[in-house]
Amino acid sequence: MAALTREPEELARLVVAGDRRAIARAISWVEDEHPAAAALVAAIWPHVGRAMVVGLTGPPGAGKSTLLGALVREVRRRGCTVGVVAVDPSSPFSQGAVLGDRVRLVEHDTDAAVFFRSMGSRGRLGGIAEGTVLAAAVLDAAGFDVVLIETVGAGQSDIRIADLVDVVVLALQPGSGDSVQAIKAGVMEIPDVVALTKRDLPGVDHFRSELRLALGTDPERAPALVETSAVNGEGSAELWDAVLSKRAVLGDDGVRARRAAGLEREIVAGVAARAGARAQQAIDADPAVGVAITGLRAGHLDPLAVARLLDARVRGEA
Amino acid sequence: MAALTREPEELARLVVAGDRRAIARAISWVEDEHPAAAALVAAIWPHVGRAMVVGLTGPPGAGKSTLLGALVREVRRRGCTVGVVAVDPSSPFSQGAVLGDRVRLVEHDTDAAVFFRSMGSRGRLGGIAEGTVLAAAVLDAAGFDVVLIETVGAGQSDIRIADLVDVVVLALQPGSGDSVQAIKAGVMEIPDVVALTKRDLPGVDHFRSELRLALGTDPERAPALVETSAVNGEGSAELWDAVLSKRAVLGDDGVRARRAAGLEREIVAGVAARAGARAQQAIDADPAVGVAITGLRAGHLDPLAVARLLDARVRGEA
Repeated sequence: MAALTREPEELARLVVAGDRRAIARAISWVEDEHPAAAALVAAIWPHVGRAMVVGLTGPPGAGKSTLLGALVREVRRRGCTVGVVAVDPSSPFSQGAVLGDRVRLVEHDTDAAVFFRSMGSRGRLGGIAEGTVLAAAVLDAAGFDVVLIETVGAGQSDIRIADLVDVVVLALQPGSGDSVQAIKAGVMEIPDVVALTKRDLPGVDHFRSELRLALGTDPERAPALVETSAVNGEGSAELWDAVLSKRAVLGDDGVRARRAAGLEREIVAGVAARAGARAQQAIDADPAVGVAITGLRAGHLDPLAVARLLDARVRGEA
Repeated sequence: MAALTREPEELARLVVAGDRRAIARAISWVEDEHPAAAALVAAIWPHVGRAMVVGLTGPPGAGKSTLLGALVREVRRRGCTVGVVAVDPSSPFSQGAVLGDRVRLVEHDTDAAVFFRSMGSRGRLGGIAEGTVLAAAVLDAAGFDVVLIETVGAGQSDIRIADLVDVVVLALQPGSGDSVQAIKAGVMEIPDVVALTKRDLPGVDHFRSELRLALGTDPERAPALVETSAVNGEGSAELWDAVLSKRAVLGDDGVRARRAAGLEREIVAGVAARAGARAQQAIDADPAVGVAITGLRAGHLDPLAVARLLDARVRGEA
C-alpha cells in the first residue's frame, strides 16, 4: 500500500475524492490540531455544505448507539451514504486517538458507503469540541450524503449541538425524568425530533404522557415525537421521515443561518479554550505564575490577583 | 440611613463586621466585576476559609429549593448562622442584578443569622461563575458558620461545584433516571451525600434500589444516601449529620487541597471566559474581524482561518 500523503492540499484532494485512508487521516489532523490542519481545512472548505448534518443526543443509557445503528441502516436502505462522528465520554470506544479509527458498527465495516469515527470529548472547554465540527466537515467534503453526529447530552450542554447541525434528534427512554424536568424548566434546548426509545420498557405510557405535556402541542414549535424499539429497528423509517420533514420546514436559508451562528459560537469557544490552555501552561511552567499559585494555595494571595496575572500572560502583556 | 461606602477597604471592613448592606454590595461588586472588586477581594481574603461550604446540586425539579429551606432551618436549629448563594437558571428569582437581593426564604427574612442571595448564571463559559465562588467567599469573610451554594446540575456540569465546596449534596427525586444512568456511566462526579427527595412519591422503592446499585457499596467511596420529604422537613437532621460526617472524614487538609485545586480550575475557566468575551467583542466591533465573519457566513472563509485571526486579537498580536 502506497504511503499516504502528508501534504495538506493533496490530502484534501484525496478526501474530496472519497479516499477512506485520507478521510481518516484528515479527521485525525483536525482532532489533534496538527500543524497542517489549517491548510487542510482551508482546502476542503469549498466542498463543505452539501451533506445533511443530523445531531443525535440524549442522556447516557437512552439507547443512542442502538438508535444510531438503526438510523445508519435506514439511511443506507434509502440509497444514501452516511458518515458518523460519535462523541461519547461514556462509550468504551471514545478513548481518543488510540481507538479513534475503530469501527463500532461492525456490520457496516465492509460497506464503503458508511464511515464511522468515534472521538474523545477530552473534557474540553466549549462543549462540543471544535474537532467534532471539523470532522463532520471532512465527511461532508468527502461527499457523504448524510453526516450523523452523536453526543451525550443532559440538559444545558445540548445547546451547542443544536447550533451545529441541521436537525437535532433527542433520544429519551422511559424513566428519563430529569430530561423531562429540564424541558419543563426551560433549561434544555428543544430538539427538532424526540425519539422515545425502548418503548417496550414498563412505564412507557406514563412517560409518553409526561413527555407530551412537557413538549407542548404548538405545531410550529413542538418537536416531532417518534417511538422506536431496538427490536427489528422499529420506528426507524418514521424517525427518518420526521428528520427530513423538519429539515424541509427549516429550509436552506434556515440551515445556513443556523450553521453560521453555530460556527461563530464554536469559534469563540475555541478561542476561549486555547486561552485557558495557555493559562494552564503558565501555571505549570511559568516560574512567576508558580509563585502566585503557591501563594494562592497558602491563602496569602486571592484568586482575582492570580487571575489578573494569568490574563496578562494570555494577552502577552507580562 | 447613611450612605454606604464605595471605598473597597472600608467596604471589606464592614463585610467582616457582618454589616448586611455591605455584604449585599460586596456580592454585587464581585458578581458585576466592579472595577474595585479586585481590591475588595484582596482585603477580605485573609478572613476567608473559616466557614463550612456546602454545595447543593441536582437536576431541575428535584426539590432543591425545598431542601435548601429545610437545611437552613436545620442549621439554624443547631445554633449556626448560614449564608446562601443560589445559582439557578430555572428559578424565577435568578434574574440577575434586578432580583439579586430578593430574599426567597421569606420566613428567614427578619433573621439576621441568615443571608440569602440568588445570582443569575448568565450562561457564562466556565460553569459555576467565578462570581459565585467570590460571593461565597464574601459570606465566609462575613463570619457565617455555614455557606450553602445551590446550583442546577445534570451530569457533567456538576463537576465544578464539587471542587469548590467542602461537601457536595446531590438532590434526586424518584424518576431521576437520567442522573442514575449518568452515575452508572461514570460521567457524573460522585457527590458526598445523595438526598433522595420526595420519598412520598410513587415508585420510590424501585428508584431507591436503582440508586443504591448505581452508587455502589464501597464504604470509602460510596456517598451517604439520606431520604427526605417536604412534609415537616423530615430527614433534614439526618442529612445534615451526613454532611458533617463526610466533612470530618475529608479533614482540614483534604478540604484545603480540594478548594485550592478548585480555585485553580476556576481561575483558568475565568481566564478562558474573558478571552472568549474579548473574541466576541472583536466579532461585534472590529472591522477586520467583521470582514472575516462575513466571509465565514458566505462560505468563502473557513472557521480555522477566523479562529486564527481571533486568537491573534485576543493575544494582542494583530
